[in-house]
Amino acid sequence: MCGIFGYCNYNKPKTTCEILNVLGTGLKRLEYRGYDSAGMAVVVDGAYKTFKQTGKVQVLVDHVEKECKSFAKSPPYTNHVGVAHTRWATHGEPSERNSHPIPSQDNEFFVVHNGIINNWKSLKEILQKHGYVFNSETDTECISQLILFIYRKGSARGIRMSFTDLVNEAVHRLDGAFAFLVVSKNYPNEIVAARRGSPLLVGVAGPSIFQMDCIGVDVQCKEPKISIETPVGTPKLATGTSELSRSVSRVFVHGADQPEKSLEIYFSSDQTPIIEYTNKILTLEDGDLAHVSEKGLEIIRSVPGGESSRPLEEITGELGDIMKGSYPHFMLKEIHEQKDTIMNTMRGRVNFEKNNVMLGGVASYLGQIRRSTKLIFIACGTSYYACLHMRGLFEELTGIPTVTEVASDFNDRLPPISRTDCCVFVSQSGETADSLISLKYVQDCGAITIGVTNVVGSSISKRTDCGIHINAGPEIGVASTKAYTSQSVALAMLAVQIGQDNSCNEERRKEVIQDMLKLSEGIASVLKDEPGLKKLSEDVLKYQKSIILLGRGYQLATCLEGALKIKEISYIHSEGIGAGELKHGPLALVEEHLCIIMILTDPEGGKSNNAYQQVRTRGGNPIVICTEKTAPLLGDSFKVIVPEVNRSLQGIINVVVLQLLAYHTATSLGFDVDKPRNLAKSVTVE
Amino acid sequence: MCGIFGYCNYNKPKTTCEILNVLGTGLKRLEYRGYDSAGMAVVVDGAYKTFKQTGKVQVLVDHVEKECKSFAKSPPYTNHVGVAHTRWATHGEPSERNSHPIPSQDNEFFVVHNGIINNWKSLKEILQKHGYVFNSETDTECISQLILFIYRKGSARGIRMSFTDLVNEAVHRLDGAFAFLVVSKNYPNEIVAARRGSPLLVGVAGPSIFQMDCIGVDVQCKEPKISIETPVGTPKLATGTSELSRSVSRVFVHGADQPEKSLEIYFSSDQTPIIEYTNKILTLEDGDLAHVSEKGLEIIRSVPGGESSRPLEEITGELGDIMKGSYPHFMLKEIHEQKDTIMNTMRGRVNFEKNNVMLGGVASYLGQIRRSTKLIFIACGTSYYACLHMRGLFEELTGIPTVTEVASDFNDRLPPISRTDCCVFVSQSGETADSLISLKYVQDCGAITIGVTNVVGSSISKRTDCGIHINAGPEIGVASTKAYTSQSVALAMLAVQIGQDNSCNEERRKEVIQDMLKLSEGIASVLKDEPGLKKLSEDVLKYQKSIILLGRGYQLATCLEGALKIKEISYIHSEGIGAGELKHGPLALVEEHLCIIMILTDPEGGKSNNAYQQVRTRGGNPIVICTEKTAPLLGDSFKVIVPEVNRSLQGIINVVVLQLLAYHTATSLGFDVDKPRNLAKSVTVE
Repeated sequence: MCGIFGYCNYNKPKTTCEILNVLGTGLKRLEYRGYDSAGMAVVVDGAYKTFKQTGKVQVLVDHVEKECKSFAKSPPYTNHVGVAHTRWATHGEPSERNSHPIPSQDNEFFVVHNGIINNWKSLKEILQKHGYVFNSETDTECISQLILFIYRKGSARGIRMSFTDLVNEAVHRLDGAFAFLVVSKNYPNEIVAARRGSPLLVGVAGPSIFQMDCIGVDVQCKEPKISIETPVGTPKLATGTSELSRSVSRVFVHGADQPEKSLEIYFSSDQTPIIEYTNKILTLEDGDLAHVSEKGLEIIRSVPGGESSRPLEEITGELGDIMKGSYPHFMLKEIHEQKDTIMNTMRGRVNFEKNNVMLGGVASYLGQIRRSTKLIFIACGTSYYACLHMRGLFEELTGIPTVTEVASDFNDRLPPISRTDCCVFVSQSGETADSLISLKYVQDCGAITIGVTNVVGSSISKRTDCGIHINAGPEIGVASTKAYTSQSVALAMLAVQIGQDNSCNEERRKEVIQDMLKLSEGIASVLKDEPGLKKLSEDVLKYQKSIILLGRGYQLATCLEGALKIKEISYIHSEGIGAGELKHGPLALVEEHLCIIMILTDPEGGKSNNAYQQVRTRGGNPIVICTEKTAPLLGDSFKVIVPEVNRSLQGIINVVVLQLLAYHTATSLGFDVDKPRNLAKSVTVE
Repeated sequence: MCGIFGYCNYNKPKTTCEILNVLGTGLKRLEYRGYDSAGMAVVVDGAYKTFKQTGKVQVLVDHVEKECKSFAKSPPYTNHVGVAHTRWATHGEPSERNSHPIPSQDNEFFVVHNGIINNWKSLKEILQKHGYVFNSETDTECISQLILFIYRKGSARGIRMSFTDLVNEAVHRLDGAFAFLVVSKNYPNEIVAARRGSPLLVGVAGPSIFQMDCIGVDVQCKEPKISIETPVGTPKLATGTSELSRSVSRVFVHGADQPEKSLEIYFSSDQTPIIEYTNKILTLEDGDLAHVSEKGLEIIRSVPGGESSRPLEEITGELGDIMKGSYPHFMLKEIHEQKDTIMNTMRGRVNFEKNNVMLGGVASYLGQIRRSTKLIFIACGTSYYACLHMRGLFEELTGIPTVTEVASDFNDRLPPISRTDCCVFVSQSGETADSLISLKYVQDCGAITIGVTNVVGSSISKRTDCGIHINAGPEIGVASTKAYTSQSVALAMLAVQIGQDNSCNEERRKEVIQDMLKLSEGIASVLKDEPGLKKLSEDVLKYQKSIILLGRGYQLATCLEGALKIKEISYIHSEGIGAGELKHGPLALVEEHLCIIMILTDPEGGKSNNAYQQVRTRGGNPIVICTEKTAPLLGDSFKVIVPEVNRSLQGIINVVVLQLLAYHTATSLGFDVDKPRNLAKSVTVE
């Protein structure tokens, strides 16, 4: 997840410093979306000049403030387009070189981008064969270079394409989920935005055109509604590298007949930076291109379909609220995001047609990993439970003995580690102190190390031999939710990839991969049940002093993680217990008033059902998380029914139920779930 | 632990059936001490005949009842001595051959024995070289054979030794902790009892001699006080296998001048079988020999020292109470027994002079175990925590990667196991269903298996390749206490023994071995603090809804086990949490009203102290288990101070604090701790 921001002023004189200031303020609002490096580009002496800094946005803003002095005497621009970006690294570590805006060769085009280009490697290869030199490790660079390539090929044939046609051409060669802005000295005072899968909004401010003092945009504006024009012809240019682009529809936001009136346009990943300038926004849809020039804003659909008109929306509300979207807390927002974030984790890595997985970050170490005598997963807290969650799948698909270690306990013991061991470090922040100490130790022992983090450029991602970026986007809620599900999916992919050399497991791998495709829908289905889960939290759970969560097999980790969530934000003493251990002691606790949540989603879960019967026999009346298939076995217990997937992945759906229960229990008790007492987001001390 | 029982009648005619009935009733009372096989010996046609059955005492009693028919017409014996035994196997599986009374060659001497003879193997070898044929796998057989050997050597030299001199000779060749009874056709109507380390009582019934209707024994009896006579000379017989016996003092319980009066004498491992016949008992001391003949009872001290007189004690109370000794519950009795049971676990296995360990049961597999690529411990409940407890010591001393597995979870996953793995199964009963399933699986995979159980002849001890008997004696309380400490010691010994081929660890092994010697005293010291712990339980713990136990390193397992104890018997929701994981979530629970018990006994426990500070900072006020060394760092917290030992063994002392807290919390809440709700002693279903 990154934040992109663009600012266009027409017939509205602004000095370079003023423009840089607008861009910097915009980035600060977007900073929660990523904060490892930032950059912006404005026109200096007729060409775009970039300002980039690693670290938080403030570092960039401070830097720009100093630079501003040299522009202090420059005259203001009547018309200008600037772009900016705050980064959450996915490809390439945080550095100036990898910071956006990413230039094409010869600085002809600049791109700020949020999302992932799946086919960036192949595009990069093709372009490199055509002599293009890449300077960054980002996937973004293939966009700016591709646009330059198409532009030059057109020019060579004597075609002067419009900026939108040009970008449209490029977009049709891109595979992935993205939103980006492009500017170029070749198209002065123009900007093109493209959206497919990542959010992008346009804010429109221009009282002289839109009579913004009037209330109804529909009535007062000359072109108040956006209407779709007939398609424009297909492009002439054939690159030979991809299919040709398809039909294009145009949408005008205002008449081109009033160029003399002032207009300001803002592009942003969300509403937060726009709200202070205008409350009129337009949300771009997947497949949209937006083009802004002195003539105004036009929306072009690069794919068929979509509504034929789009009202400008009027936004209201506090800034902080808006940053969370329609959610009262980041945690709830992140719970809901999971249906998308797990797809982001898989995007470009899982081939659902060929049923295989390709994690670029570990590919070159696969041989060594497969020859390991042991896989040792080392992590803390929620990340540890993600490891425990996928332990069985690694054992099954790789045939390599697999151990999970809590980092602090590992460090207390410093057990024997050999050069033939492969150690996997899982950490959302990539900065967990205990895990870093373990990492140092196993590296001194000569083990291969894999990092699984949500922060590219974090200490763990830098210091491990190879790794996976879980690509869940920044997690703001202290209680981890989307990181857990993305870590679980990332580890499942790793298990499949390591096991891909074993043809015996082919069917099993196929099952797992095909069910990965069902996860997003499964999570969405749980989210639909939120009102019922909220009611259960408010009617039952909030009154408990203790909650016991019971599950076994893959669901043991789910119970432990669910119990941790409840502990963290509702401060109710909850404990996850393996259902197989029940009769070795914990069963003594069971009586009719004890609150028990059981997970019974395994269709072959005979042993789990034993535990259910034991609990019932002892007067317990558990809340049961089950599937349509297992529900009929469970008498009159209160049931939460979830969609069934392969049992190795079922926990990714089940845990969302527990996240929602924890969330609504805590909020109904009046606690601030985003900032639970005593806890910090990432634990950088031992 | 076994139960021994003897019955002598003089001038008191009894039929064979009556005698067998007394012996059977006695065994039933002692059955809690062992119940895998039983036997008795009475005189039939001038020589001792044995009756033996594997299984519970009732099996033997039923068998004897049938046999009785053949003696129905035999005349009663005026004088007779019979012995009986109920067994808890330690050497050799439960079988008729290994059941006591154990005969010498030619059935000349019969011994019933409770305890362990450490030097049985060397005695057996010497005697075998002299042509003696051994028929059982017991250590006991070396006693009966040694007595025969000395008897025959004396006879060969024309010496007719008294029965006491003979047994005294033998006792001085024995190394170990024991109590035994000997009878012989060569000494008709005589019996000698010897005690060193194992309990043995004598009950005296004889109204005509002792005027039992009188209250004060001191006043009314002719020889009311037992007084010690001058030493008798040293024995003439030199066997060349051991030092000569030392001074002997004689104690007479009654005058030898009243042979015509009737007398009944009972020998027993505890009071329970005696109470129904007489309330006059005498507790034998270590070093005592007791001899009974038609002349009466005499007590002979085979070592110098001891009181010069011994009053007969008068016992009172209900039978059930007496079986528990002075304890209201078996659990408390077993908690207190631990200072002895851990010594029993080590007896004959740890050489504290040479600092080495010799576990006979695994010796022949040591080479294979040392070449293992992994040690995998598989267990359930408390036994699992004992494995977790000693994991670090195995890693440190053996250098072999060590994994612990909860059996039910292991069975759910069935992870990769290879022929080079060594799997250790720990189970008190040796019958835990989940562990047996795991055992079958790993054997199919070809792994070597070690069993660590408290029941010789149990399924795990039979089916594993080799093993350790923890020798804690039968555990009656459902909540395991002495088994946990003995399992921990047994595993510590195993770790030392496996590591003995590595000279680098010599110093470390020595430290561990030397501190094993301090454990009994350490536990005794905790037991002395019982009143304080009881008060803490009654004043604080019994009112809690939740109790959190925090510890790390070796103390993590202690916390988990302590929490399980509290759960099992007090039904309070308690949870053990690794102190290193605190800041990854559970810290949110901490506030001033949360009941927290922390273990901070590690003198180098800087990280544990961090956790203590975190808890204090968040308003928590933990009860702290600490040592004299760590106490000063812990401000004004409520402290339980325990003796310090090597940190790998410290948990064995610390856990006793938690056992006592759990016990007193539960009893102050009015719960039956010996039979906690919903639980069974050994879990023989999945």
